[in-house]
Amino acid sequence: MKMWSGRFTKETDELVEDFHSSISFDSRLYKQDIRGSIAHARMLGEQGIISKKEAELIIEGLKEIEKEIEEGKITFSVDAEDIHMNIEKILTERIGDAGKKLHTARSRNDQVALDMRLYLKEEINVLLDLIVHLQETIVAKAEENIDVIMPGYTHLQKAQPVLFSHHLLAYFEMFQRDYERLLDCRKRTDVMPLGSGALAGTTFPIDRERVKEELGFSEISRNSIDAVSDRDFVLEFLFCASMIMMHLSRFCEEIILWSTDEFGFVEVDDAYGTGSSIMPQKKNPDVAELIRGKTGRVYGSLMALLTVMKSLPLAYNKDMQEDKEGLFDTLDTVKGCLKVFIPMLKTIKIFPQKMYEEAQRGFTNATDVADYLVEKGIPFREAHEITGRLVLHCIKQRITLNDLSLEEFKKFSHAFGEDIFQRISIESCVMRRDVPGATSPRQVSQAILTSKKIIEWNRLHIV
Amino acid sequence: MKMWSGRFTKETDELVEDFHSSISFDSRLYKQDIRGSIAHARMLGEQGIISKKEAELIIEGLKEIEKEIEEGKITFSVDAEDIHMNIEKILTERIGDAGKKLHTARSRNDQVALDMRLYLKEEINVLLDLIVHLQETIVAKAEENIDVIMPGYTHLQKAQPVLFSHHLLAYFEMFQRDYERLLDCRKRTDVMPLGSGALAGTTFPIDRERVKEELGFSEISRNSIDAVSDRDFVLEFLFCASMIMMHLSRFCEEIILWSTDEFGFVEVDDAYGTGSSIMPQKKNPDVAELIRGKTGRVYGSLMALLTVMKSLPLAYNKDMQEDKEGLFDTLDTVKGCLKVFIPMLKTIKIFPQKMYEEAQRGFTNATDVADYLVEKGIPFREAHEITGRLVLHCIKQRITLNDLSLEEFKKFSHAFGEDIFQRISIESCVMRRDVPGATSPRQVSQAILTSKKIIEWNRLHIV
Amino acid sequence: MKMWSGRFTKETDELVEDFHSSISFDSRLYKQDIRGSIAHARMLGEQGIISKKEAELIIEGLKEIEKEIEEGKITFSVDAEDIHMNIEKILTERIGDAGKKLHTARSRNDQVALDMRLYLKEEINVLLDLIVHLQETIVAKAEENIDVIMPGYTHLQKAQPVLFSHHLLAYFEMFQRDYERLLDCRKRTDVMPLGSGALAGTTFPIDRERVKEELGFSEISRNSIDAVSDRDFVLEFLFCASMIMMHLSRFCEEIILWSTDEFGFVEVDDAYGTGSSIMPQKKNPDVAELIRGKTGRVYGSLMALLTVMKSLPLAYNKDMQEDKEGLFDTLDTVKGCLKVFIPMLKTIKIFPQKMYEEAQRGFTNATDVADYLVEKGIPFREAHEITGRLVLHCIKQRITLNDLSLEEFKKFSHAFGEDIFQRISIESCVMRRDVPGATSPRQVSQAILTSKKIIEWNRLHIV
Amino acid sequence: MKMWSGRFTKETDELVEDFHSSISFDSRLYKQDIRGSIAHARMLGEQGIISKKEAELIIEGLKEIEKEIEEGKITFSVDAEDIHMNIEKILTERIGDAGKKLHTARSRNDQVALDMRLYLKEEINVLLDLIVHLQETIVAKAEENIDVIMPGYTHLQKAQPVLFSHHLLAYFEMFQRDYERLLDCRKRTDVMPLGSGALAGTTFPIDRERVKEELGFSEISRNSIDAVSDRDFVLEFLFCASMIMMHLSRFCEEIILWSTDEFGFVEVDDAYGTGSSIMPQKKNPDVAELIRGKTGRVYGSLMALLTVMKSLPLAYNKDMQEDKEGLFDTLDTVKGCLKVFIPMLKTIKIFPQKMYEEAQRGFTNATDVADYLVEKGIPFREAHEITGRLVLHCIKQRITLNDLSLEEFKKFSHAFGEDIFQRISIESCVMRRDVPGATSPRQVSQAILTSKKIIEWNRLHIV
Repeated sequence: MKMWSGRFTKETDELVEDFHSSISFDSRLYKQDIRGSIAHARMLGEQGIISKKEAELIIEGLKEIEKEIEEGKITFSVDAEDIHMNIEKILTERIGDAGKKLHTARSRNDQVALDMRLYLKEEINVLLDLIVHLQETIVAKAEENIDVIMPGYTHLQKAQPVLFSHHLLAYFEMFQRDYERLLDCRKRTDVMPLGSGALAGTTFPIDRERVKEELGFSEISRNSIDAVSDRDFVLEFLFCASMIMMHLSRFCEEIILWSTDEFGFVEVDDAYGTGSSIMPQKKNPDVAELIRGKTGRVYGSLMALLTVMKSLPLAYNKDMQEDKEGLFDTLDTVKGCLKVFIPMLKTIKIFPQKMYEEAQRGFTNATDVADYLVEKGIPFREAHEITGRLVLHCIKQRITLNDLSLEEFKKFSHAFGEDIFQRISIESCVMRRDVPGATSPRQVSQAILTSKKIIEWNRLHIV
Repeated sequence: MKMWSGRFTKETDELVEDFHSSISFDSRLYKQDIRGSIAHARMLGEQGIISKKEAELIIEGLKEIEKEIEEGKITFSVDAEDIHMNIEKILTERIGDAGKKLHTARSRNDQVALDMRLYLKEEINVLLDLIVHLQETIVAKAEENIDVIMPGYTHLQKAQPVLFSHHLLAYFEMFQRDYERLLDCRKRTDVMPLGSGALAGTTFPIDRERVKEELGFSEISRNSIDAVSDRDFVLEFLFCASMIMMHLSRFCEEIILWSTDEFGFVEVDDAYGTGSSIMPQKKNPDVAELIRGKTGRVYGSLMALLTVMKSLPLAYNKDMQEDKEGLFDTLDTVKGCLKVFIPMLKTIKIFPQKMYEEAQRGFTNATDVADYLVEKGIPFREAHEITGRLVLHCIKQRITLNDLSLEEFKKFSHAFGEDIFQRISIESCVMRRDVPGATSPRQVSQAILTSKKIIEWNRLHIV
Repeated sequence: MKMWSGRFTKETDELVEDFHSSISFDSRLYKQDIRGSIAHARMLGEQGIISKKEAELIIEGLKEIEKEIEEGKITFSVDAEDIHMNIEKILTERIGDAGKKLHTARSRNDQVALDMRLYLKEEINVLLDLIVHLQETIVAKAEENIDVIMPGYTHLQKAQPVLFSHHLLAYFEMFQRDYERLLDCRKRTDVMPLGSGALAGTTFPIDRERVKEELGFSEISRNSIDAVSDRDFVLEFLFCASMIMMHLSRFCEEIILWSTDEFGFVEVDDAYGTGSSIMPQKKNPDVAELIRGKTGRVYGSLMALLTVMKSLPLAYNKDMQEDKEGLFDTLDTVKGCLKVFIPMLKTIKIFPQKMYEEAQRGFTNATDVADYLVEKGIPFREAHEITGRLVLHCIKQRITLNDLSLEEFKKFSHAFGEDIFQRISIESCVMRRDVPGATSPRQVSQAILTSKKIIEWNRLHIV
Repeated sequence: MKMWSGRFTKETDELVEDFHSSISFDSRLYKQDIRGSIAHARMLGEQGIISKKEAELIIEGLKEIEKEIEEGKITFSVDAEDIHMNIEKILTERIGDAGKKLHTARSRNDQVALDMRLYLKEEINVLLDLIVHLQETIVAKAEENIDVIMPGYTHLQKAQPVLFSHHLLAYFEMFQRDYERLLDCRKRTDVMPLGSGALAGTTFPIDRERVKEELGFSEISRNSIDAVSDRDFVLEFLFCASMIMMHLSRFCEEIILWSTDEFGFVEVDDAYGTGSSIMPQKKNPDVAELIRGKTGRVYGSLMALLTVMKSLPLAYNKDMQEDKEGLFDTLDTVKGCLKVFIPMLKTIKIFPQKMYEEAQRGFTNATDVADYLVEKGIPFREAHEITGRLVLHCIKQRITLNDLSLEEFKKFSHAFGEDIFQRISIESCVMRRDVPGATSPRQVSQAILTSKKIIEWNRLHIV
């Protein structure tokens, strides 16, 4: 029999029961539910809403249930709908009348909001920790390969030579923004909703601040109607997760490209590649592909909940039960992706020679020819035009800029001198880009130091 | 050891194994996988690619495995990656060398495409059947309530009186389009990809038409590269499902509105409503709300796979493994929603009196006043303007159009005569809308007959 | 003054006027609006609802307005809200009372549904035509390069050699599905909604079949409430467009990859590439990138309208005005993309030699080694394993399979004979994949013939 | 002739020119582009990269161009591609060689990133200001109606009576989170990317800190590759905008519901409602509907850019040009919606009597009956059950709880006493919910004070 059956004359249809029962997925919240109920019961006892004795009975009962859940001794029932009702029911079966008092001054609406916030706060911290691990891996990889030169690309066309370490550190920055966004999201998750009741608060003289303290929240929610109908924190998290996946998808795309026979810049370790059922020679960068693919799934969950919340009148509506599976799946997906991506990156093999060779092709030093001319006093637009014609000449001759004689250079502009040859070596191109944030070894070394300091700061902000 | 391990020097990392194993969800395809393998093996035997004896051994082995899976006797292994490899491995353990020959002239790429198509074709038929059931329920409900008058709305403002049955039949039309869209989707799903190999076909003299016939497909795929990299049929299905959910969400929205104390048009049966953990009086239309909410989830899966497929180079990429969970979840969701929606609609209680009373409020007969004036020779725009002023007058006096005396009517236009009173009764408003597709009882009765014929046609098109 | 102002005591707020006026974008529908109004007026005259004379006046007036719009002589006003009211207002200013009668037996709700359907039907035909052009370009390109061998990829790793023409024809198949999906969408668009009135039909004795005939529709809508609240046809079109863009994005992704210095398979013509503001050597495949990017925009419009329609109660709601801009932008985008993609593909330069060289790398003939062993009687799984070890051996020795001596081959299996060398030439690998849908020159020639027949069929189905 | 044409042998195809030209929409950035160029030129002069004289010429020239753009004297050309090239071209035409030097040490890649950040920072401030206006309107409306009682809803079923002011303040909280999210987004937008060049920095001795100071940024970007390929700030903004729209859509949904004849809680002012082309009586809450509908459009733009950015390799790709239209449209949409929503809310008419009457229906005081019993010592679960049966009894008798005699109450539980009647008056139900965040007049008055303080704080954070 349902806990709310008083006003009903019929049992719930069985199909319906299965349809709207959430125990199959919200059992994941058992720890948070019990933690919240313990804090609630203790406060009820302290405020004299129930007796101290009853409060103790409840707390002991809940602790025991938690232990048994962890030992796998408890089977939840679909009939009891969700984790909240399941636990309350088991508790009441065990401790009797005191159990029936646990739900005093509380509704599932504020209870579920509380559980979700407790749960997400913890999970955000797990994710912050994984991001820091990824950042450490990136920095270590950059440090190991500090001097490796690769072609930088725009439009996937060779653009200018850059340090491979500099390229890696671009990802450090993306994940740093993800880190900071998660901190901001955690701040808005860190609000204690209990005491909001069904939607209007409660008639009992509860102490919300007390519950807040015990559960480690920073503040209490300010409006009871909002508190039970707000899923902004879940949406904000799904957006943060979408951004992490987007960044991972870009990194994976590059690893997939670099792993091709044509690029040949890297090779994933045998432990992180997989073969083909039919083609014996294949080693596929499956991990990178699958992470790239899973980006869609996380975007989908964001879009799903945005759709759910659109136009919902206040306060709680059953539609909002759809917040959970998307959140849980997203957490599993993002954590799962980071957990395999990090060691895959750690163990990836780099081919500096191939990178270097490719950096020398594709006229990646053309901008430096133009810059050279500018230094000799030619306006940039003209220098660009002259260099463009030089490149076209080389393409037709099937040679590189480095193959030109000084005489040939001079045919295009008298400003060219002997020093042009030194100026357009790949090493020089990299070395001379020496402003803050640029690719010179000096700047990249500096960036590595800064990154390490950021990592330290990050470490301090995981609770 | 992996079936493709020849070229590898290391075992797959365990985390990676879990990460890209799909057995936890693609085990659902076991029936289709076995059906496909049986057809493949039989054809290999007939073509002399393997011996007839080997083909028989394989077929017997597969049938036995199917039986045992159904009896719950088989445990799949994560190590064997997916349902395809799991079954092949078990088969080989049982029948030896012949098992090792099953994958001749086949790749997982065409195999998985085959399984997905077989599976989806069957599931589409299940869905078509459910839609027809829903249509029957709608028509029955319309027939039972053929004469019930309710206010028709635009902008959720009362507009003109309509028959409740006419309103219900609007949904019949939506689901009919869904039905036809699914037929079109089934047509494009009904293509046999086996024989496409990894991407380029196969060197063995296979008979693709033979396999097609045995598996009941309408045609074979025309290009091997396309056949293994195409997931259009899954996307098209996800779109069809999104449309079904969108239509259901509109229907549910109305049921939720109609169930409010304020509208009071309907009441869901106790078996389809649920109570509150805190408020004893509540009976909530949870089923309708949850279906409305699940619309987001299905949209999300569509968006997820669209994202996955965007920019994927040919042919197969591991990202495409992400096609399955979204499809399976969508199938479960749409079928689950229809299965509870249908009986909920069947058992819903209608309050014709409340509908009728509300139809008389809100000046729903104002258009008929204007139409009346038009018939008396006044241009429509003027008639509209005059009636607008009449309505404003009534609002200020807090009366309805029916409360006006002929004298008052005449103050606004001399064209009004005695017959105006009969003309603007709610019954007359409904009765006089008597063109094809309109709300008069005559037209709606006709529409019910047509709907029944369509249902018959539909029944014939479920395979 | 608004045409509906009778019942109002205040002017519309000016900000609001701008906010919900749609004339800035729906003026695009002027032709369809006028065509629909002419058919409506003629029918009203024929049915005696207005006089023949009035009908003629209206028709003449409308034709004149159309002409003047095309000559740019008419300025629409925001105050008149939309294209429908603007035209009616101008007409009435010109022809007086007859103009005020045009809207008899009609509502903007069925009028706008009509205009949208007329418009979309025409635009679908334009799109069908562009798709056929693209298919012709693909087939011509395949024919020109019928014998060019390139590496086929899975997971972006070299897999098996294929004909470049075969690869191109994979796209033919994708666009053929797009073509057929559009035909299905057109079928559901081809329904005449006029006569549905605001939502309930009309009290006037109109002849809907007559209007249907004049406007060239296949059927009339069956339910007036559905007819004015249905935007399925727009959504279905947005989905079809999303699929076209998805296919284009895959094609563009490959062109971008193939244009890299590393792949070097193709070069876009100077007329379809663009340069850099800073790097003088750059030629970027911008067109392909931009099309790839525009995929997001079309997906976005699909998601936007799905969101709009979710949970909308019947019948018309103002939210539905949001169907237009997304549809118009999508049409412009898809047509625009096809119009530049086609000549870009036509003029692209192919480098068969580079393709051929790359096809010889990456052990693309390994499957053929395994198949060879199978033919010698070794079960496929063992043949795969042996070949895997052979490949590993070659990788360690930095040689290819073709570099092995027979003796070396025999160390891995005694089944190898002299004929292995002939068997594993790239040409042989391609030639021997000779089943329907596979990559052999014979099959691809056949596919080209079939494609041409399909194009002929397609041509016949553009109205 | 293009500014990058040196290496090309052909003109760009005209269709292509139109296709990838962005001047039609990015001309909106002219102010930011000029401001950025002035800061860049001044710095180049100070660093001696160009002469002080040249810098001055450039700055004067740019200021003049800005003035002329504002006066509408300048026509941009499609041929010059975008706003950046257009302005540079016009400048060079006017000041000659100095103009050709402006682009020294700069690329369009870092230039466009700069312009977008400058622009978005300003626009975020505009939006923050609008949000504060909306919050003020909400607080004023709550204050005016502080004592109005309405039914609170969950599942759109009457739940418990609440103050209308309390309900309004729930929206205050939503928009406060939007406000704070925008501040966080502004923080990450407030980063100066110039000096990152095409992707690798520049060879010229520029002073990035100097430019940062002049343009009022908080920090410079730390990695040049990231700086030119990062659109996180746009995505984060689109997410913030989606949340604002989601909140508005909920508010609008309620206004639409409340405006129905059935609810009758509010009426929008004539200046914010619109009529029907056919039904003379209609006044539709179009503004609310249209805002609700526009939610889809903003979600769509978020999904569009997430799709664009997925899997893009570093650094800049042309796909990223698709960031602009979605951003601009979203800004226009959100600002436009707020600008009409605020006065619509300000002028809306409230019907307190209807709200009060409805609050008394639907057993909204049932929870208080249960709470009463709890206070008398009955465990909550039992009290809930007893009350449920009481409600069922009343439903059958078609009476309310207030209609019961004490005797009848006592039939259900002996714990009932005379005081029950006072306890379950609607006023008492509201008054007794007196914990922080709850609906009692005391708490809501407190909430209004807090809200005003928050508004003050908000005011201080708009730059």
